[in-house]
Amino acid sequence: MGTSAFKTVRGMRDFLPEQAKLMKYIEGKARRVAELYGYKEIITPIVEPYELLSAKAGEEVRSRMFVFKDLGGRDVALRPEFTASVARLVATTLKNEPKPFRLFCVGSIYRYDEPQKGRYREFWQSNYELMGSDKPEADAEILMLTNSLMKTAGLKKYCFKIGHVGILRGILSEEKLDDRAQNAILQLMDKKLYEDALRLVEHSGASKNCLTTLRNLVKLKGSKTLEVVERIKEHVEGYTKAMDAAENLYEILKLILESRCEVDMNVEAGFARGLEYYTGMIVEPSVPELDIALGGGGRYDRLIELFGGEPTPAVGIAHGIDRIMLALQLQKGMEEAEEEKTVMVIPVKEALKGEALKTSQVLRDVGISAEVEVMGRKVAKALEDADRRKMDYAVIIGERELKEGAVVIRNLLKREQKTVKIEKMAETIKGRQRS
Amino acid sequence: MGTSAFKTVRGMRDFLPEQAKLMKYIEGKARRVAELYGYKEIITPIVEPYELLSAKAGEEVRSRMFVFKDLGGRDVALRPEFTASVARLVATTLKNEPKPFRLFCVGSIYRYDEPQKGRYREFWQSNYELMGSDKPEADAEILMLTNSLMKTAGLKKYCFKIGHVGILRGILSEEKLDDRAQNAILQLMDKKLYEDALRLVEHSGASKNCLTTLRNLVKLKGSKTLEVVERIKEHVEGYTKAMDAAENLYEILKLILESRCEVDMNVEAGFARGLEYYTGMIVEPSVPELDIALGGGGRYDRLIELFGGEPTPAVGIAHGIDRIMLALQLQKGMEEAEEEKTVMVIPVKEALKGEALKTSQVLRDVGISAEVEVMGRKVAKALEDADRRKMDYAVIIGERELKEGAVVIRNLLKREQKTVKIEKMAETIKGRQRS
Repeated sequence: MGTSAFKTVRGMRDFLPEQAKLMKYIEGKARRVAELYGYKEIITPIVEPYELLSAKAGEEVRSRMFVFKDLGGRDVALRPEFTASVARLVATTLKNEPKPFRLFCVGSIYRYDEPQKGRYREFWQSNYELMGSDKPEADAEILMLTNSLMKTAGLKKYCFKIGHVGILRGILSEEKLDDRAQNAILQLMDKKLYEDALRLVEHSGASKNCLTTLRNLVKLKGSKTLEVVERIKEHVEGYTKAMDAAENLYEILKLILESRCEVDMNVEAGFARGLEYYTGMIVEPSVPELDIALGGGGRYDRLIELFGGEPTPAVGIAHGIDRIMLALQLQKGMEEAEEEKTVMVIPVKEALKGEALKTSQVLRDVGISAEVEVMGRKVAKALEDADRRKMDYAVIIGERELKEGAVVIRNLLKREQKTVKIEKMAETIKGRQRS
Repeated sequence: MGTSAFKTVRGMRDFLPEQAKLMKYIEGKARRVAELYGYKEIITPIVEPYELLSAKAGEEVRSRMFVFKDLGGRDVALRPEFTASVARLVATTLKNEPKPFRLFCVGSIYRYDEPQKGRYREFWQSNYELMGSDKPEADAEILMLTNSLMKTAGLKKYCFKIGHVGILRGILSEEKLDDRAQNAILQLMDKKLYEDALRLVEHSGASKNCLTTLRNLVKLKGSKTLEVVERIKEHVEGYTKAMDAAENLYEILKLILESRCEVDMNVEAGFARGLEYYTGMIVEPSVPELDIALGGGGRYDRLIELFGGEPTPAVGIAHGIDRIMLALQLQKGMEEAEEEKTVMVIPVKEALKGEALKTSQVLRDVGISAEVEVMGRKVAKALEDADRRKMDYAVIIGERELKEGAVVIRNLLKREQKTVKIEKMAETIKGRQRS
């Protein structure tokens, strides 16, 4: 076998126990937030029809999908996001269920990006979708739950970048630019290539007033959210749809203030996102320590009908579990979780191995994590190993003690030991565990 | 978009909330068992080099892999099992760590099988590997933890089929059959095509004695485990390696008895498994309600060195999470978990939406699951919906109550309501929750 077989595929990685624990910790927090907000978990396949995944993803994402034919010759791909799969479910299996739906999913996602810090080809997302409501309180809920996740995961400092694609699209559509041109312009804006975007607007035959308005808008940003939106409204005066969009953003932000949700927000009038299906508010949470966002989401009111379902207003967000992990490590925000105490059970001789297995099970049955010595080592060697691995207790199974229904419990930290009746064993370890 | 885009890829499926909850419940139990036995979780990629995955999987599995080229032209595949990935880690990143390792992973697996009841092309496994020990107590531990998982998941009746590939391989190798011939024979045995297997043995030039021995062995099975192994030993007399294998199996089963691990076991002398890398004890847990096993595992002492690592004896097992789910449903073994109480928060008018969002957060902050009315419905309509969805409480935000720092709490089951101060709100709901 070649040495390349020993390496993970480019852009993929292993998580060793410490990292895996942190990943699962954040996943657990994301699941708990879903429960608290009434989002029901669903599981969808990682392999989906290419046609489904490519339909609305936008050229940008489409070109970076892992596409292949299965053995039956069907075009399939690894999901580059959750939303298409959720939209499929809503347009089919769930189509007759009463609205609203609150749906949650978590798992791995695949995009053929150039690997860099925080960006991999396999990554993990928690995804929340609220379907059926076009009201600003639905948008506000998505912001609030994102805040709950960031806070409960342990991030100390983070900020939401907020915008509304209806502002830019409202202006461009009133200037008679078609979707294709709008998408191209928003792609450039998403990459902060504002000059290129404005040049494209100009080439698309937009008015002078439009260019001036856009040039002013892309400069408008700030953390005094309602004030920034008021200024946006002044600038888009005359563009009815853009005005409606700004008003909608205002209402959402006002609800956030009224809800007392404590979060730093930054409104940016020129903010756009790579996925083409957004129609309203858009958001990206981030931390100062990282260039890339921790997640992204927004409102996409036309997506379900584009998938053939009933018109269904919807708002949702995906958070990068592994990016939140990276941010936590950078902020050293992970609370030192109280480690579970660990016990090694060691028989003093071969003939007592069965007793050692039995004793370990007695401990596990009351919730104590126990390993049995399986290397056939003498007690001294096994104790050395337990010490090196910073285990808390050793339970030594000896013949003499066993005859009296007892074992030796050794506190590996204090280096002291005592003989304890088996029925008091768990209590002894658990009692000390508390102290 | 064609209608086929609305279907999941053949052999793949969605899990709706109720099923997804059960899947995550079993996954949680599997993780808890890992903690109690000292197995550390790792996360490995779903996409791995084809060379790695195909190296030791055996022709059977190799031909059913999802193989493709990534955009960089590399041959990659979706993992058809966890063991190759774990072996890679042990042969590389972990190679200098002291033994034993206890490693756990859980996630989805891909095989291009013909879909049938309980068999899909995307399925979920929990995987435990104990590396570094060649002792029978290591094998016994894998059996014990499997028993713990089955029991804690809630299965009422299950049985372990147990064998030892060293018995058949010991005989065949002393008859000078090479690995290739042995693999072909064991494949047939795995499929219970004993006559075909025996014919192949005959064609491979084995002795008459060998044929008689094998013919007798495949009939040997039973739940009186130690007795069956004693009879196996009588039959393989003269085949030294087969005798050692039977002796090893005897020791493992004796430890299980001594450990008081309560599990129905069935020893089968002619039992073989599809994966070629097993060298010792093999096991498959199953339930009477299902034809297919709930998992499978065993000892594979040469695998790590075949991957280029240090010789490392190892024993491991993978359990099918979705098969355990199916078995639980068939046995109706799922305990009725106490459902979390749910609350809907409803503002009586538009202007109180922010207050409703704030109130919902107060509830969540103390661990109560709360949904806010986001459809803009009148109170009566929203209550109707909460009723239909069998929610427990409605918290109604009214102007008059709010002025007095209070809300109306409606018990939807009892159809009674009362006005409660906001600071007593959570207590009122939680208090009733306990009763």
